[in-house]
Amino acid sequence: MSKGIPKRSEDYSLWYNEIIKRADLAENSGVRGCMVIKPYGFGIWEAMRDQLDRMFKQTGHVNAYFPLFIPKSYLSKEASHVEGFAKECAVVTHYRLKNAEDGSGVIVDPEAKLEEELIVRPTSETVIWSTYKNWIQSYRDLPLLINQWANVVRWEMRTRLFLRTAEFLWQEGHTAHATSQEAIAETRQMLDVYARFAEEWMALPVIRGVKSESERFAGAVDTYCIEALMQDGKALQAGTSHFLGQNFAKAFDVKFATKEGGLDLVWGTSWGVSTRLIGALIMAHSDDQGLVLPPRLAPLQVVIVPIYKGEEQLAAISEKVAEIKQALLARGISVRYDDRDTERPGFKFAEWELKGVPVRLALGQRDLQNGTIEVARRDTGEKQSMAADDNLASAIEALLADIQQSIYEKALAFRQENTHVVNSWDEFTQVLEEKGGFLLAHWDGTAETEEKIKEQTKATIRCIPLPGQLEGTQEEGACVLTGKPSRQRVVFARAY
Amino acid sequence: MSKGIPKRSEDYSLWYNEIIKRADLAENSGVRGCMVIKPYGFGIWEAMRDQLDRMFKQTGHVNAYFPLFIPKSYLSKEASHVEGFAKECAVVTHYRLKNAEDGSGVIVDPEAKLEEELIVRPTSETVIWSTYKNWIQSYRDLPLLINQWANVVRWEMRTRLFLRTAEFLWQEGHTAHATSQEAIAETRQMLDVYARFAEEWMALPVIRGVKSESERFAGAVDTYCIEALMQDGKALQAGTSHFLGQNFAKAFDVKFATKEGGLDLVWGTSWGVSTRLIGALIMAHSDDQGLVLPPRLAPLQVVIVPIYKGEEQLAAISEKVAEIKQALLARGISVRYDDRDTERPGFKFAEWELKGVPVRLALGQRDLQNGTIEVARRDTGEKQSMAADDNLASAIEALLADIQQSIYEKALAFRQENTHVVNSWDEFTQVLEEKGGFLLAHWDGTAETEEKIKEQTKATIRCIPLPGQLEGTQEEGACVLTGKPSRQRVVFARAY
Ligand SMILES: [Zn+2]
Ligand SMILES: [Zn+2]
Repeated sequence: MSKGIPKRSEDYSLWYNEIIKRADLAENSGVRGCMVIKPYGFGIWEAMRDQLDRMFKQTGHVNAYFPLFIPKSYLSKEASHVEGFAKECAVVTHYRLKNAEDGSGVIVDPEAKLEEELIVRPTSETVIWSTYKNWIQSYRDLPLLINQWANVVRWEMRTRLFLRTAEFLWQEGHTAHATSQEAIAETRQMLDVYARFAEEWMALPVIRGVKSESERFAGAVDTYCIEALMQDGKALQAGTSHFLGQNFAKAFDVKFATKEGGLDLVWGTSWGVSTRLIGALIMAHSDDQGLVLPPRLAPLQVVIVPIYKGEEQLAAISEKVAEIKQALLARGISVRYDDRDTERPGFKFAEWELKGVPVRLALGQRDLQNGTIEVARRDTGEKQSMAADDNLASAIEALLADIQQSIYEKALAFRQENTHVVNSWDEFTQVLEEKGGFLLAHWDGTAETEEKIKEQTKATIRCIPLPGQLEGTQEEGACVLTGKPSRQRVVFARAY
Repeated sequence: MSKGIPKRSEDYSLWYNEIIKRADLAENSGVRGCMVIKPYGFGIWEAMRDQLDRMFKQTGHVNAYFPLFIPKSYLSKEASHVEGFAKECAVVTHYRLKNAEDGSGVIVDPEAKLEEELIVRPTSETVIWSTYKNWIQSYRDLPLLINQWANVVRWEMRTRLFLRTAEFLWQEGHTAHATSQEAIAETRQMLDVYARFAEEWMALPVIRGVKSESERFAGAVDTYCIEALMQDGKALQAGTSHFLGQNFAKAFDVKFATKEGGLDLVWGTSWGVSTRLIGALIMAHSDDQGLVLPPRLAPLQVVIVPIYKGEEQLAAISEKVAEIKQALLARGISVRYDDRDTERPGFKFAEWELKGVPVRLALGQRDLQNGTIEVARRDTGEKQSMAADDNLASAIEALLADIQQSIYEKALAFRQENTHVVNSWDEFTQVLEEKGGFLLAHWDGTAETEEKIKEQTKATIRCIPLPGQLEGTQEEGACVLTGKPSRQRVVFARAY
């Protein structure tokens, strides 16, 4: 199989698109801005979803399902929310088609106009808080800890597979609490869940932080986020967790009888991650040979390729492979025996490399005689011969764990190399141009300065890192642009 | 907890609505025809979905995701399909809102009109076959065995929770094959998967059959279905599997190079079940005390209620319960210890009865002394005392299996009692009025007769049962209405 993938160093953007295409992850559909997630790409999403769902349930959440459509008037109820979301959305105005009189096909039936237009949800705070109003009367009804897996639509003008599409898949948690402290604790807990998922499952180191006011979710009091660094030195926001204060409770009049006999507005949170994570996974780990997947999220963890001449050799190899396969499956390792007789081993090797399968086993006649098997790891390309005995499955299991860890460490080392402390405006612009990456700089805390920096450099404040996230950020100083006092360094970067 | 559920015999329809409301399964939303599936109801859907997904994967299918929106022109490409689906659908005409100049809120921006309207998918054959055109070139690309879990929208005028809603959740399988035989085999295989799921998981006996022409899916050559009988004597279609012939391949010009060097149109199938199954589950098994859930789909299989006076007794009971809970969880049985101190045991018993939890355990001071525990099964209401020893968990496991089987047998006996062979028009109308249920009657095979029977009685042909499904149906005779020759009996009923 000829690959023809451009090198990352030559054209990162084209490299990204080609990886998605050649590894069969997704493609643009005939519908503007909407993608088709192909089975292999969807397998990655299923692995992500299953693990996140387990983590949500372990932290006491349950799933539910709310309507796709939001009446237009709901959107207007929270003032800053409507500003943020009403501008780019799909609007349903009619509920019927009819045959065109000239026989040319179907047309929208003008008689079937909705009294109030419906918005295809860009996010569900409004429709969910209008429902919570009926579910919450007393402190006994709190907390409500609910998550939804759903599709949402935001009418983006410039789209990019996985990273920015008009329709995308996500989960959105929406919780309601009796106190501010409890809601903040929930917001922080879910940020931690996302960070643990990113680091332990996606092998992606992230910075936990809080957004500046201008990057905050429309309707939130505080937006927490995890930020990751891609191989081209640009940042990618991988998940957000919002403390909503009482904003949506106010907008939808959601009050509860307190233990003490009073009546209070409910405190809220919302948090979400999306199919964008697949884009992050690709951009963080893959290389010029194709996709590199961390074993814990790989739809297929091990592939076995037979090297043979003639039916007789194949039969003997297949018999041995059946044993190995059985032992791997027994340990919960997913495995495929690629015995297609239409392709040669070299083609198969290239194909599975392109698809990022973490471990490839190859078994030939000589291996069979020697009781060995060739084991290749995708992340480093290293090959070794192992004994094909009863210990093989546990050795492969250990290898998969090692690959998971190595991919993480490689990404962490990359981030460390590409995180720069800058102390002057000259240094800021020079490092940004020459090196990219995360810039740790002092900022005077004003939206004006943030905006000026963005206009001049296209770099934005990715987050104000939480204590303990990055060494040297929790110190006072002077703003790189204005020289005014700064309470701590923040993270600047150009971003997806 | 006062129940106030009407009896099935008094008002079946109100009983159904009250079960849904009181058991916290779902509710109508502020959006016309769209429901909110509440966490407990969604738990049932998750159990259904997980098992169906396993069965789809075991039969070689993979999941993918296709766009929510369908360009209007796609719908028109398959002539009978557009007739069936274009008439009741949500139409997106604009992609932006803006602030009203009078400050009254947001309005649709007339500048942001789509060139071509988008339909919110009522089903995805068109958008999927337009994609398959690019995926299929050669016989080597076949078969394509793909499933999608998604939301769909059909603008229904009269809606009913779970049974008929504007938006619903479902899965839709869409497969492509090189030969007619292979596609028919796939259609039949998925019908069998649905029937096995209904019988073994939902404890719901079903008749496998084929639809008459007038009940066929718009665009299909043949529609196979499973039909179940509800407790009010009405039928409910629980799943359909369509042999599409080459209709969609023709409409979207999907051809493949054959092994022999020719060029042929691809053969297709599609098949689906939806959240409607939850309606079927409720209607088939529940009783005047509330929901009755088959253990294999119950979000919670066992609940344990402590009977105690004072903290000291509670502590001793809780210690024993922790042991029991551990042993049940180790067997994969879901269990909740209801130690709320805000409610009395009687209230808890009624609540879990209402929610259909298959097994309730109650543990009091005397039990503790005697080494026993009270075990109540929801389906029959029977109570027994069991030894609270090391064998308890396996005894509960066996009891759950017995409940699963008993619920199925009860439903099967009900169906048998309510399936009537009728041989004349008088008998047909009399049995339909007095008894309802499934009527096995001869029919002359014409759409005219079918339509007349429907007009006069509201009964429709639920299916033409496959051989082996119902005794006595595979014999020739004379149509109950016209007396013309009939090749076999078909199943008539009033239906949901
Ligand atoms: Zn540096
Ligand atoms: Zn009878």
